Amino acid sequence: MIGYLYRDPAAPVAERVRDLLRRMTLTEKVGQVNQRMYGWHAYERDGGGHRLTGAFRTEVAAYGGMGALYGLQRADAWSGVGFTDGITAADGARVAGAVQRHVVENTRLGIPVLFVEEVPHGHQALDGTVLPVNLAVGATWDPGLYEAAAAAAGAEVRARGGHVALVSALDLVRDPRWGRAEECFGEDPYLAARLTEALVRGMRTSEVAVVLKHFAGQGATVGGRNSAATELGAREVHETHLAAARAGIRAGAAGVMAAYNEFDGLPCVASRPLLTELLRERLEFDGIVMADGTAVDRLVRLTGDPVAAGALALNAGCDLSLWDACFPRLAEAVAQGLVTERTLDTAVARVLTLKFRLGLFEQPYTPAVEQRPEPNTPAAEQRPGLRELSERIARASITLLAHDGGVLPLAPSTRRIAVLGPNADSIAQQIGDYTAPQRPGSHHVTVLDGIRSAAPPDTEVSHAPGCDLVGGDLSGVPEAAALAAAADIAVLVLGGSSARSGDTSFDTNGAAVVTSANPGGMTSGEGVDLADLRLPDGQLALLGAVAATGVPVVVVLVQGRPHALPDVSGTAGAVLSAWYPGPWGGRAVADVLFGAAGPEGRLPVSIPRSAAQLPVFYNAKDHGYRGYVDQPATARYAFGHGLSYTTVAYEPPRLSRARVTRDDPTLSCRVTVRNTGERPVRETVQLYLRRLSGGSSWPRVRELRGFARLDLRPGEEADAVFAIDADTLASVTRDLGLAVEPGEVMLETGPSSAATQGARLVID
Amino acid sequence: MIGYLYRDPAAPVAERVRDLLRRMTLTEKVGQVNQRMYGWHAYERDGGGHRLTGAFRTEVAAYGGMGALYGLQRADAWSGVGFTDGITAADGARVAGAVQRHVVENTRLGIPVLFVEEVPHGHQALDGTVLPVNLAVGATWDPGLYEAAAAAAGAEVRARGGHVALVSALDLVRDPRWGRAEECFGEDPYLAARLTEALVRGMRTSEVAVVLKHFAGQGATVGGRNSAATELGAREVHETHLAAARAGIRAGAAGVMAAYNEFDGLPCVASRPLLTELLRERLEFDGIVMADGTAVDRLVRLTGDPVAAGALALNAGCDLSLWDACFPRLAEAVAQGLVTERTLDTAVARVLTLKFRLGLFEQPYTPAVEQRPEPNTPAAEQRPGLRELSERIARASITLLAHDGGVLPLAPSTRRIAVLGPNADSIAQQIGDYTAPQRPGSHHVTVLDGIRSAAPPDTEVSHAPGCDLVGGDLSGVPEAAALAAAADIAVLVLGGSSARSGDTSFDTNGAAVVTSANPGGMTSGEGVDLADLRLPDGQLALLGAVAATGVPVVVVLVQGRPHALPDVSGTAGAVLSAWYPGPWGGRAVADVLFGAAGPEGRLPVSIPRSAAQLPVFYNAKDHGYRGYVDQPATARYAFGHGLSYTTVAYEPPRLSRARVTRDDPTLSCRVTVRNTGERPVRETVQLYLRRLSGGSSWPRVRELRGFARLDLRPGEEADAVFAIDADTLASVTRDLGLAVEPGEVMLETGPSSAATQGARLVID
Repeated sequence: MIGYLYRDPAAPVAERVRDLLRRMTLTEKVGQVNQRMYGWHAYERDGGGHRLTGAFRTEVAAYGGMGALYGLQRADAWSGVGFTDGITAADGARVAGAVQRHVVENTRLGIPVLFVEEVPHGHQALDGTVLPVNLAVGATWDPGLYEAAAAAAGAEVRARGGHVALVSALDLVRDPRWGRAEECFGEDPYLAARLTEALVRGMRTSEVAVVLKHFAGQGATVGGRNSAATELGAREVHETHLAAARAGIRAGAAGVMAAYNEFDGLPCVASRPLLTELLRERLEFDGIVMADGTAVDRLVRLTGDPVAAGALALNAGCDLSLWDACFPRLAEAVAQGLVTERTLDTAVARVLTLKFRLGLFEQPYTPAVEQRPEPNTPAAEQRPGLRELSERIARASITLLAHDGGVLPLAPSTRRIAVLGPNADSIAQQIGDYTAPQRPGSHHVTVLDGIRSAAPPDTEVSHAPGCDLVGGDLSGVPEAAALAAAADIAVLVLGGSSARSGDTSFDTNGAAVVTSANPGGMTSGEGVDLADLRLPDGQLALLGAVAATGVPVVVVLVQGRPHALPDVSGTAGAVLSAWYPGPWGGRAVADVLFGAAGPEGRLPVSIPRSAAQLPVFYNAKDHGYRGYVDQPATARYAFGHGLSYTTVAYEPPRLSRARVTRDDPTLSCRVTVRNTGERPVRETVQLYLRRLSGGSSWPRVRELRGFARLDLRPGEEADAVFAIDADTLASVTRDLGLAVEPGEVMLETGPSSAATQGARLVID
Repeated sequence: MIGYLYRDPAAPVAERVRDLLRRMTLTEKVGQVNQRMYGWHAYERDGGGHRLTGAFRTEVAAYGGMGALYGLQRADAWSGVGFTDGITAADGARVAGAVQRHVVENTRLGIPVLFVEEVPHGHQALDGTVLPVNLAVGATWDPGLYEAAAAAAGAEVRARGGHVALVSALDLVRDPRWGRAEECFGEDPYLAARLTEALVRGMRTSEVAVVLKHFAGQGATVGGRNSAATELGAREVHETHLAAARAGIRAGAAGVMAAYNEFDGLPCVASRPLLTELLRERLEFDGIVMADGTAVDRLVRLTGDPVAAGALALNAGCDLSLWDACFPRLAEAVAQGLVTERTLDTAVARVLTLKFRLGLFEQPYTPAVEQRPEPNTPAAEQRPGLRELSERIARASITLLAHDGGVLPLAPSTRRIAVLGPNADSIAQQIGDYTAPQRPGSHHVTVLDGIRSAAPPDTEVSHAPGCDLVGGDLSGVPEAAALAAAADIAVLVLGGSSARSGDTSFDTNGAAVVTSANPGGMTSGEGVDLADLRLPDGQLALLGAVAATGVPVVVVLVQGRPHALPDVSGTAGAVLSAWYPGPWGGRAVADVLFGAAGPEGRLPVSIPRSAAQLPVFYNAKDHGYRGYVDQPATARYAFGHGLSYTTVAYEPPRLSRARVTRDDPTLSCRVTVRNTGERPVRETVQLYLRRLSGGSSWPRVRELRGFARLDLRPGEEADAVFAIDADTLASVTRDLGLAVEPGEVMLETGPSSAATQGARLVID
């Protein structure tokens, strides 16, 4: 192969792709768009090491190569490989090397395979360092922090041989019943766009290509039902569901995954209007489109036959399959005239381009395994950087929803703390879905652990779960109430769980225990949609019983979605959402409770009053709705809301110009913010746009268009300054472009979407 | 004007319009598309008669005519004219004559005015005969019966001088939280299409032009919120929301009203894609488009100015305004170049065409008032035909949801009946929204009245409301429970109410009383959306207390929407929905309870378990959803469900051909149905289509495509035969047309959408 143009690192990628493509057989081309095999089926244990399986060798031989291999490093209950049998970081790197070597050395053209890994919030592999779920990341409103974490997580993936990270970023929580709400950065397009950007940038730092999940509109399915239909119109898609994808593409995302849901009647993977007309032509995306798992197989319901299903997806613009039995048969589709070889070539070229760009032809192998950590040593211990970032995200995400002002931070005089509730002492219940099982060990910190270690030495910390998560077993309530009655304060840790059947957790002695042995114990996670968003009756009963003792109550919600909250005034002195804060989240919670850190989180989603009033996202169309006859249509806690331990005063915003033109729309918006209380604060100043007139579509109530962080000491005052430009003012035009349109808008600033002051701007 | 072509009845309408149009000034043209004035402001009392107001004369003079006048006959609390001051049928006819004479005789061109009346379920005017609400009509599944009622209602309107009837027909109950659910024929496009067709045909029999409300998609707003956004994609609109409009247009509807909601980002009245590209060009509609009330004024939020707002609506394709201050200023819009006079001409031509088609230039006046009934004599007494039809619809709509088999019909031995509940004895609460206040009089029949008069002579009927509708006043529960305990059966009449503040009702002595003095007493009606669909707590407490006495309980729901129902097995022996059955509905309920009639209604909407599981319409996209983790996603009672007093057995359907072609898709589908019980039955046999493969979009679970009525004596068997043709098999193509697409389908028959058997059909 020496002398072949595609082997020349100095040649332009496009020419290398062209050269390689013309040398390939139809079968070899099909192999490049084929991602049928699970990575964990490529190898098996062999004494102390691993060997390649016959199935893997057969697959490579059948297609003269392999396009991509999903989940080589994955090992969890779902994959059928428990974590005790799972593959360590060092073994993973070795296996990746062996797999790659087999592909490169045993195929005619020596095209390397792409290793595709799940990295939803940290690498989903044994010893991968777990981050808080994306919804918690959303609550930090801190793209810089997240970029650092993404870079470090990417480095973990790369070190084990991975090339491509699959990360949920594009879905928005438009219906919190959806079980995958925890995988979203929240409900808002702008916030999701900034974090998606940070994700891609961070991963690229570590030379990991990102495939963004999912494109498009999956957070808005009918009824919040997983993989169900969406009924979104084109304009709603453009106004709400494309911002994160645009930002991710601009930041250099390598690919997007077509979502399971429909796009105007067809599953995304079968939608040419979505994958080609919108994504390729309008958004000018030149990366790969990957199918979701078995999504192409589902198309057989439409086509009646798998060969035609593969052709449908390929013609729509899907380049790479996932687990389906259709793409492997694309040669038949070409032979039957259902798709042209030219269309197949386009898809193959995109896959090859990614491999060239990643430098795989030059360096197909991961660095020598000797450079990796010792086998069976938890990687997290080796990488304090990422672990620390995980904890920092957890801390920055904790959102104080309600506070009567006197309970938190806990007074130094507090001597007896009752830590109660079903989420007080379970690692499995605080790490979320898409997380590999965690090894037992002292490095995990539940809320109970965190409080115990952060409490002053002479503090008595008692604990009882009080009730189970959802089962309604109230037998423990009296014990919990008794502990509360004997305490100065009760910290009640409630919420949800994405811990799957067979997932493992650890008791306080570090012994592994199986949690949630049945799916009824889950309230969130993929495929676990929740209709009634209230906390389960048992948890509410526990809250009532504890509050009835008269002890001050702090409710900590460990949750992967916004639960509908009752009016807690008079019941709880404070309510915090800690989201699913990851393995060390308990320390973050304790830091906030004891005042070592202030609560800095701001809501990335609206918290509803009930499921009956859905949807409650803040950026609804502005029709002046007065509410339902039996309850308001507004959220219990608004998007952007989050209290601190001090008070903060905002002046109205001042604009450098009151009138701009479409061609010259730049100005600055300045707002003075003062810490009027007794404690320092890290304040997230929010900028919203509210259209008064003009524009091509009906205006929304308001839309987030910027945010800035101010650190203010007590009494200190500072200005947040927002540079307003065409991006800030852009709206979706009649022909679905983006442009600054004439009219009047208000530029509004404030501490939440429900507490803004505005200044009027005329756009000529 | 003699000799003018437009005056020549023999000339083609198009030529008459062209001739008239070229004679008109810009101001006169604006006058023809202007429907600003409320009809009841055109006249005032003058001794025993009425005289025209100065405001009316001024308006006519200002525009050299008047396009249309809304609600001349209307007189209710909302219009500021109470029913005691309202206008009688005879006075209405006289006033209409005087108004028309003034317009015709005091304008240069003598163009008659159109009288536009609300006829939502009977003419909304004093003494108009009230029909059950449209949702009850939907439950009859009987277009023939409804066509007769529409013809009779149209005759009432025409007799008083009305020309155009505004009728809700196009909206579907896709979200039952919407307060206007009662105005819909249900959730299904096919059923709504058949009833819309019947409506238009019936009205045309009486020479009344129909404007169908509302176009398009208003039943699918976000959160079921009135006038809010919809986010529907084009395909969902085509597959679900156009069928009734297509059918109404084919039947000869004169117009449609643009809906308040958005259509892909713009209010319908401002949407050229909807009103011109879809309605005019694709559906080939040549009638008028009327704005909804002040809908054009709302566009000022977009345009910043009323002149531009009028131009926006006119350019979109709206021909006639309603109450707005924008269309009256269209001359300015023309002068400013915002709209061309040619576009205005098109709208004017449509209004004039309607007037010519109605024959108004030849006969602008209603027949002599002497032919009308005496003033102040309730019209209903004069027209037993329509009153009887109203009662027949009520009877045919009563839907038996649950039955343990032993309770109904009431045994002849029943001697003591307790009639309980807040809806047992209120006319106002059983007639629905958009209903003129009713005069006191014995011709109204509440459920209590109906039971009293239908019960055998020696039956003791006791009554107590037990609780209020929504207020939670439970002080009456013990009395109600005591009456139940002393009875052989308790009939518990629960549900909702659309009775507005100041609406009148009548106590059992016939005296008028004001009901629901505050909006909190309403649970449905325009602007009264309900988030939590459960019956109010007080009603459920009453049900619990009555059931606890051990007496058999029959629950009768008087309601304008599907309330979420708990599992009543073990609590109530039978549950019936009587919808809002109209003024004589109590007799219909009694007939069914005593067995004089069987329950014939079938659900036109799915009955949810809770608001948390919305939406629950039966024809959802078929994604094999397994349900929420905390409750099923399926309805409590499915679309099409309705029990009878007997048992019915269905054989599987037989097709005359198992394979058809797109060009020749006709076949017959035959199903044998047998009455296997002891009582006669009127069975509604339903035909559904379920797509197995092929088609341009993801298939739905199933779709109603036909229904037939069979009357079967005990033991009798008969076949329902459905003629399947291209309409039956058509689906929405990739380019949003309608065609028979190849693939495989099941043709399914059965007594409800949840109990079907199918036969496979291949379409080549």
